[in-house]
Amino acid sequence: MYIVILAGGAGTRFWPLSRRLQPKQLMSVFGGKSMLQRTVERVLPLKPQGILVITNALQAAETVAQLDYLHDASIEVIAEPVGRNTAPAIALAACIIARRDSAAVMAVLPADHYIRDEEAFRGTLLRAQSLAQQGFLVTLGIKPDRPETGYGYVEAGGELCEAGSYQVTHFAEKPVLAKALEYLAAGNYYWNSGMFVWQTQAVLCELEQCLPDLCLALQPLRCPDVEAQTALEPLLEAIYGEIKSESIDYGVMEKAGKVAVIIADFGWSDVGSWGALPEVIPSDAAGHVAINARELISIDAVRCLAYGGDKLVALVGVKDLIVVNTPDALLVCAADRAQEVKKVVETLVERGFTEYL
Amino acid sequence: MYIVILAGGAGTRFWPLSRRLQPKQLMSVFGGKSMLQRTVERVLPLKPQGILVITNALQAAETVAQLDYLHDASIEVIAEPVGRNTAPAIALAACIIARRDSAAVMAVLPADHYIRDEEAFRGTLLRAQSLAQQGFLVTLGIKPDRPETGYGYVEAGGELCEAGSYQVTHFAEKPVLAKALEYLAAGNYYWNSGMFVWQTQAVLCELEQCLPDLCLALQPLRCPDVEAQTALEPLLEAIYGEIKSESIDYGVMEKAGKVAVIIADFGWSDVGSWGALPEVIPSDAAGHVAINARELISIDAVRCLAYGGDKLVALVGVKDLIVVNTPDALLVCAADRAQEVKKVVETLVERGFTEYL
Repeated sequence: MYIVILAGGAGTRFWPLSRRLQPKQLMSVFGGKSMLQRTVERVLPLKPQGILVITNALQAAETVAQLDYLHDASIEVIAEPVGRNTAPAIALAACIIARRDSAAVMAVLPADHYIRDEEAFRGTLLRAQSLAQQGFLVTLGIKPDRPETGYGYVEAGGELCEAGSYQVTHFAEKPVLAKALEYLAAGNYYWNSGMFVWQTQAVLCELEQCLPDLCLALQPLRCPDVEAQTALEPLLEAIYGEIKSESIDYGVMEKAGKVAVIIADFGWSDVGSWGALPEVIPSDAAGHVAINARELISIDAVRCLAYGGDKLVALVGVKDLIVVNTPDALLVCAADRAQEVKKVVETLVERGFTEYL
Repeated sequence: MYIVILAGGAGTRFWPLSRRLQPKQLMSVFGGKSMLQRTVERVLPLKPQGILVITNALQAAETVAQLDYLHDASIEVIAEPVGRNTAPAIALAACIIARRDSAAVMAVLPADHYIRDEEAFRGTLLRAQSLAQQGFLVTLGIKPDRPETGYGYVEAGGELCEAGSYQVTHFAEKPVLAKALEYLAAGNYYWNSGMFVWQTQAVLCELEQCLPDLCLALQPLRCPDVEAQTALEPLLEAIYGEIKSESIDYGVMEKAGKVAVIIADFGWSDVGSWGALPEVIPSDAAGHVAINARELISIDAVRCLAYGGDKLVALVGVKDLIVVNTPDALLVCAADRAQEVKKVVETLVERGFTEYL
């Protein structure tokens, strides 16, 4: 199995910790190792044939630097000249992998997801691999525990021989709340996690049918003599000028025939904003979550998230706050307004405060 | 006129900006110059005969360093070995001044008060000087605008010849709320600001009557040959072992005979906590007060005080908060709980986090 890690995101909802050159996946969201480093370490016990980390030119240097400590020759960082959403990144990886091993199965994993039970996660990947070998495009589905309107859903139909896996009858885009409530009640709808496992040839086949222009543009990558990284860069420069942004969900999965969902029950979060962290990090007796804080002193304060930037944090008489301290910026945000942190970033852009982006 | 500046306070309510070695008067509460520097600069236009800054051993070096830029030989820093409240500090200053000029008038000013109209302040001091020359112990009284229970009050009786000055008929300690409401309604009660003007001989005379032990202990300071700073230090060491803590209000003013109050109408605050700053610093359209913040970005946030420590501060969906950022600590406090910041300091002491004190 090859692992493809999508590490080109440029999230703004973790500002001020996330920056243009240091997006969420390169951040130490939980203190310690970055999400990318955790994602890579999480798959190493599977001993994959290769790990392709797809990033973009802006973040390439930092991405390489962050993985350097592993001294693992099977890890390769490939920089798109510019991000074009998931379909081109996955197609690019598939072309490279197919050239090396035409029978390979590849797993596609975002670099910025939280996974609680890593053993269970690897077990799920292996079961997904076995489904993929039967020709399915496999998506990892998360059992919803709330009527979330921020994710896409997959509808599970007939059960497959692999335990906890079903044929997908329907891909549903981010729903309105009424629809999300329906999905939750139905019981056979799962969140589309953005993690996929498939035969490289199978996805290339679907890509050719669904996105023929993209495949045509990427054709030069399939020549057997395009292997050295030095040759890849100018080639990608030329190719990426022509190709359009497209998501793998909308561009391929919704149209593909043989799609399966495997139920992922390992504790998952896409950690979409500061507000998601209290779900995945244990809190203290007062409900506080402290990350990277030297100490937390709470005087009659409850349910705060404090990213301390290695400082002592003292909270007096406050509740439900997100407090984030970085070397040049300080955020204090109401916990239920975490989605609006991107408005701060928009304001910074408007006012030309580029040094904080 | 001599000026005596009481600069030995060790306030904890401005933590984390105020520390043991950097109490409120040495802090840049308003950004820029410290409160002590502002206090000294405020009196320089009066061309006083001498300025005695009374501090304690712990803060002496920083106090000297902060005043160095003025290159003014009339400024003298005197360090008590240990703070013993206001009466000993004032008595010490009076002994030193009396030795140099037995007819001098001295003004006693705390180093950590905010004064809006400095010209009016100096005018008031000059009028107080003239009252003092008639033998009065003069206290500067602030017309109350609320039933404050945190200050002492003076009751004004018969009007004196100097405009806006009255004989004091009664000194009242910090009242309970009902009493404070009475004082406010009465109209002839004023806050005791802790600023005094008197003849040095007059206050020494009262000190001798009210606190004879203190005066006896300080007697060696009145020898004409005790002048060099080098000689003063061991002398004070010996003296301060014997003397008791006492406030000038309780120890002298409440018992003294010829006391006058002069109405101080120059915009005053003792800046007792972070919560007092919005009263004295203009706020922006959203009601925010930003001090020492690189920029303030407010997304649907109102009435916050942000001490930025030279960072950009972003506030999202929050209101009535005090946010203070220092190099090693971060405070987020509900605005109406500012008095409880001292509980943070108490907790730090309990837990042995001395580095943050």
